[in-house]
Amino acid sequence: MDKQLTAREIRELCREGKYFSPTIGNLLKYVQANIISLPKYYAFDFLLFCQRNQKSCSLLEVLEAGECSLENAAKVNIKTDLPRYLIFKKGQQEECLNIKDVWQTDLVTFIFDSSVNFDYSLIKAGIPVRHINQKRNMPLYETNIDCCSAGGFSSKMVVSMRPVKYQDLMKTIEITRQFPSAHGEPIHIGDPEAIGIKDLFAPDYGQAVAIHHREVPVFWASAATAKKAVAESQIDFFITNAPGHMLVTDQEVA
Amino acid sequence: MDKQLTAREIRELCREGKYFSPTIGNLLKYVQANIISLPKYYAFDFLLFCQRNQKSCSLLEVLEAGECSLENAAKVNIKTDLPRYLIFKKGQQEECLNIKDVWQTDLVTFIFDSSVNFDYSLIKAGIPVRHINQKRNMPLYETNIDCCSAGGFSSKMVVSMRPVKYQDLMKTIEITRQFPSAHGEPIHIGDPEAIGIKDLFAPDYGQAVAIHHREVPVFWASAATAKKAVAESQIDFFITNAPGHMLVTDQEVA
Repeated sequence: MDKQLTAREIRELCREGKYFSPTIGNLLKYVQANIISLPKYYAFDFLLFCQRNQKSCSLLEVLEAGECSLENAAKVNIKTDLPRYLIFKKGQQEECLNIKDVWQTDLVTFIFDSSVNFDYSLIKAGIPVRHINQKRNMPLYETNIDCCSAGGFSSKMVVSMRPVKYQDLMKTIEITRQFPSAHGEPIHIGDPEAIGIKDLFAPDYGQAVAIHHREVPVFWASAATAKKAVAESQIDFFITNAPGHMLVTDQEVA
Repeated sequence: MDKQLTAREIRELCREGKYFSPTIGNLLKYVQANIISLPKYYAFDFLLFCQRNQKSCSLLEVLEAGECSLENAAKVNIKTDLPRYLIFKKGQQEECLNIKDVWQTDLVTFIFDSSVNFDYSLIKAGIPVRHINQKRNMPLYETNIDCCSAGGFSSKMVVSMRPVKYQDLMKTIEITRQFPSAHGEPIHIGDPEAIGIKDLFAPDYGQAVAIHHREVPVFWASAATAKKAVAESQIDFFITNAPGHMLVTDQEVA
């Protein structure tokens, strides 16, 4: 990928159907976001679910019903400017490059800050991020940790994992704590089974990464929790971005 | 007032109609909260307004439609356990001791953390709080600061004011910053006119307090902003607590 492209240029290429690769691992200097669009009928209960589970459901913004633009992404159109979308309708899932044909004016779009946004800060501090080095989609795992339910929404927490050298552990905690709106500090360190994860090399979503000698697996709450809660609810129509194919905003990572 | 009463005993006295005084200034060691109940039809837009204006609209909890209890106040009944309520119906306002007769199962109750919750910490640190010493209702002012609107909700920010000695100023900022969910650090220091306040001795709500030599007026965002936004919206039925007559929770102020 051409490293010179700005966030806005990426969004324009998406709109033209010419960019449909993962954004994760690329474009590190821009804040990236996951989206979920669902009918307004369910929006209060879902916003309440997010409010009650902020560590996982770290909202960057919520758009009003039918709205497709947001401030920190100039001239963005939510319907076309992400590389890939998933449409969920009556239990069926379809992947596509835009959602123009299925858009409804009663759709409320929730925009979630992503933990990839602190990856850049870790790298700047000299702490390698394995899924970026291995050019993989970040590994995500379902845990046995209950979220607080709200209306028809409930879920176990989904977490991301990064292997960290013991000698970098405190610095990693310190840095990620500075991103409270992007999941913040880890929710668990070291023992996958303690949070219900049986096999680190078989993630529930994304791809497995290598864990080396003298490294410990570190877990952060993930906005995939929000998607799981919607997928397991009674809603029969909603839209998300494809995993790792996020909205690239104009905002630079701090 | 009997200083020995627990939060739960206060709530029971409210329920029996035997406690109907302000809670502000009393019961300092318990977290106190303001409430707004409104029809679920408006709940998403209002929750979004709160989400976009967190400094003013500091939510402690949001209950589901019809729900009247919350975790950090054992056996509470929102309909009876506050000392005084205000019912707003078609432009009319009525004060009463409970809301049993007007309750609707579609009412969603928003519970806001109050800046009185850091008053106790200020006092413990040796910083006097004037409205408590003068046994007055905290002075509140409308400002010229715009909130972010959401749906049919928009408002100027309402602020509380405490006079602070210059020598205590940095310590006051430091302490209140530790209460991000109760409005946090000040939004302005020193020049009332700069934020649209013409006369400090004529607050828009509550009561004026004395300002002494070598003191500076310090302003914090107030949850009265949320109430103003609802009052100025199209909603023709909602309920709040009477100013200063708050829900007393079991949670002790940190």
